[in-house]
Amino acid sequence: MGRLAEVTDLERTAMLLAWDQEVCMPRAAAPEHGELRATIGRLAHERFVDDRVAELLEAAEPRDETEADVVRVARRELDKARRVPGDLVAEITRAAAGARAAWLQARDADDFSRFAPFLERNVELRRELSACFPEAEHPYDPLLDDFEPGMRTADARAALERLRDGLVPLVASAADDDAGSDFGHGAPLPEAGQRALVRTVLGALGVDDDHWRLDEAAHPFSSGITPTDIRITTRYHETDLESLFSTLHEFGHGLYERQVEPGLWRTPLGHGASAAWHESQSRLWENMVGRSPGFWRWCLPHAQAALPDYFGGRTWQDVHREVNAVRRTLIRVSADEVTYCLHVVVRFELELALIEGELAVAGLPNAWNERMRDYLGVEVPDDRRGVLQDVHWSEGLFGYFPTYAIGNVIAGQLWERIGEELPDADERFAAGDFGSLREWLGEHVHRHGRRFMPDELLQRVVGGPLDPGPYLAYLERKLQASAQLMA
Amino acid sequence: MGRLAEVTDLERTAMLLAWDQEVCMPRAAAPEHGELRATIGRLAHERFVDDRVAELLEAAEPRDETEADVVRVARRELDKARRVPGDLVAEITRAAAGARAAWLQARDADDFSRFAPFLERNVELRRELSACFPEAEHPYDPLLDDFEPGMRTADARAALERLRDGLVPLVASAADDDAGSDFGHGAPLPEAGQRALVRTVLGALGVDDDHWRLDEAAHPFSSGITPTDIRITTRYHETDLESLFSTLHEFGHGLYERQVEPGLWRTPLGHGASAAWHESQSRLWENMVGRSPGFWRWCLPHAQAALPDYFGGRTWQDVHREVNAVRRTLIRVSADEVTYCLHVVVRFELELALIEGELAVAGLPNAWNERMRDYLGVEVPDDRRGVLQDVHWSEGLFGYFPTYAIGNVIAGQLWERIGEELPDADERFAAGDFGSLREWLGEHVHRHGRRFMPDELLQRVVGGPLDPGPYLAYLERKLQASAQLMA
Repeated sequence: MGRLAEVTDLERTAMLLAWDQEVCMPRAAAPEHGELRATIGRLAHERFVDDRVAELLEAAEPRDETEADVVRVARRELDKARRVPGDLVAEITRAAAGARAAWLQARDADDFSRFAPFLERNVELRRELSACFPEAEHPYDPLLDDFEPGMRTADARAALERLRDGLVPLVASAADDDAGSDFGHGAPLPEAGQRALVRTVLGALGVDDDHWRLDEAAHPFSSGITPTDIRITTRYHETDLESLFSTLHEFGHGLYERQVEPGLWRTPLGHGASAAWHESQSRLWENMVGRSPGFWRWCLPHAQAALPDYFGGRTWQDVHREVNAVRRTLIRVSADEVTYCLHVVVRFELELALIEGELAVAGLPNAWNERMRDYLGVEVPDDRRGVLQDVHWSEGLFGYFPTYAIGNVIAGQLWERIGEELPDADERFAAGDFGSLREWLGEHVHRHGRRFMPDELLQRVVGGPLDPGPYLAYLERKLQASAQLMA
Repeated sequence: MGRLAEVTDLERTAMLLAWDQEVCMPRAAAPEHGELRATIGRLAHERFVDDRVAELLEAAEPRDETEADVVRVARRELDKARRVPGDLVAEITRAAAGARAAWLQARDADDFSRFAPFLERNVELRRELSACFPEAEHPYDPLLDDFEPGMRTADARAALERLRDGLVPLVASAADDDAGSDFGHGAPLPEAGQRALVRTVLGALGVDDDHWRLDEAAHPFSSGITPTDIRITTRYHETDLESLFSTLHEFGHGLYERQVEPGLWRTPLGHGASAAWHESQSRLWENMVGRSPGFWRWCLPHAQAALPDYFGGRTWQDVHREVNAVRRTLIRVSADEVTYCLHVVVRFELELALIEGELAVAGLPNAWNERMRDYLGVEVPDDRRGVLQDVHWSEGLFGYFPTYAIGNVIAGQLWERIGEELPDADERFAAGDFGSLREWLGEHVHRHGRRFMPDELLQRVVGGPLDPGPYLAYLERKLQASAQLMA
């Protein structure tokens, strides 16, 4: 147990280094900080995969349920880690560094061909990684498993196909690409007012300075350094409300880490259950809460006080309609709630085809543009706003994208359950009470950390397997309600 | 070399954790961050003292001068580290944690007896540590050597006695405890103005945002995370100019780390040569530069623009006299340049007597108060403002205090040399040119890092051994000049 605690300390220190690099580090120090991060990351890996840990885990006689869970999870992770040769891990890291730099250049120059050879190499290396697990049913399985333990490609494909088939007609009928474009009359959103609003909202959500901090970052993220030290970031644009919604999103991630049972923090169980489970929490706070009628009935007076030019003279119904408008756009990270998962489906289908060898890297831009036309009905004018928009593939991250959509699916299932257990949730939000939801999530989801496999946790909380039905139904209900508010 | 790079990466990561704890960490997370720091610190130690490193260093065949220096310094440090049993190191750490907490309580309650048993334990453990080096001429030698490699107690004692005998009469004749008390007419120093002034000064000194950051901390400190990432801190009181002088002080420390030859940073040579050498740089910028006529001829207009109520209508001569006034006070950290070293002498003589066994902990408050009366001519009204004011002994730091005084001595010798090589330095400061001094220090002191032993470095730079003469002469000259300005 001592060695596992050491490994988690190293991993959490690596998280702090990563946070520091985005938030504090003077920018010229990037190469030197890269060395520090590489050393800490390498030590975390080496101190975990060595024979001594395997022997200890083999011989372990757990004294209680927590130790039994720790041993089980650590054995699974260790087995996976030990089957990948160190040389391959090093080569993957090296290739990703080069590819990331090439991607930045290619994106700035809007020239996919500069990125293509690096992407080919990343795909090739992930296929080699996958080949370390010959028993896998599908070559994408071991990649997906890194983010979603136990999930098979077939499960993910079924869920995302169902989402796609439900969302394509919904978007086609509901999208109003000019909706609300006159909202706020183009009034600016001064940064000081946004900061005040974000602080008010976080205060109501239960965020205190003793355990949390909020900073600015070029790309908002959250970092649970320890369960008592939760750091979230946002960014302020004077033309939109992204600061508010990204804060709610990162709060959702942060709250998960904050509410993991304290005794788990120096074990491999001390984080959220999976990438999709994490995303379910961020999306739940960003969308189910942050775009609900109750939230805006409570928030509007605060928003009007902080940003009078923008919110003055508006009703909560106006705001609710505006923040739930469906618009067909090109960029995933700024997509609305209804179109968002279709952006993810495009990426999932394409990366699956790359790993299967069914699609060549050279054919990727065309395949991207076709799917954007078919699913979203938009024409992609250039690769910068198309296939080159996300960082993930440059970093060799394959298997991550589907977890964004599956997170929404889980959030939909949780929201249905919460509707049964806290039927007056919306009224509570209207009264500024977010504590009951926070506690419900703590009790049913957060405190368990990684004790359960993602599908087991879902079974425990909602009593069934992964099912996109509730999420699609939730979106349909919301679109109907918006239509009624407009009428 | 790879293992030594790993150890320095761990040490630098530990520095970042320490910086983060003072500047960023939400305060409730202190216990968890303590675990992270303990793990990183322990790994840095373990990965250094293990047999493999000793074998590699034994067998090393350096290919160039740098490798030869690395091997020599690492062998010396490793030999010292391996002679202290791990149990004793752990016990020292544990005792210090308890003693630190007891000291905080004792200080707040002004009750030395609550601290006494913990201090006794710290002294006892340091004597045990010292006993690991039976060849030492004096039991204090191995403790002093941790901060000032190669310096013997006899050297330190000689230097501090000479300082004491020179300073006591100087203070007695020059002190004017009411001097300048009407300066600024009690006008407040608004924090915003102080921030503006500090930024202007740092800009003129060559600090750029790509490599430096400035933050606030309860107790100002500096941290050279990497040579490209220098972090200094200060604090703002609306009643005095501490923010400016502590910034100059920490800039001096930071500049040293910034200008170490880049190729040394992942070796044991990548920091300043010793504690006293470091202090020589901070005191040089704080006092020799920051309290010079030239500095204030340049700075006054900026100070007047930033803090008009305080500096308005003043001449540079007024300011020079005020910032160089000699006042007999109780607290070391806010003492003026002339009385400062006497505060240090008191501590050095007392800790030496404790380690020698010549003084019992119970007798410490009386011995403190007697020396404060004899050397400074002040009556100590309570232990809070007396023997309990510093954190060092609670943390088991014995051997550190004399380096504060020796740092001033070295600064005096450097300043004499600089006067020969840059005879127009004061005129340059008056023109806002601090680059020539910065470069001179980089070339003669900073770039070498820890390549040379402290006394060798001194020999190289000033051509002689440690000598308090130039520092005492510098103070006498300054007091004469101040008297002339007043006349």
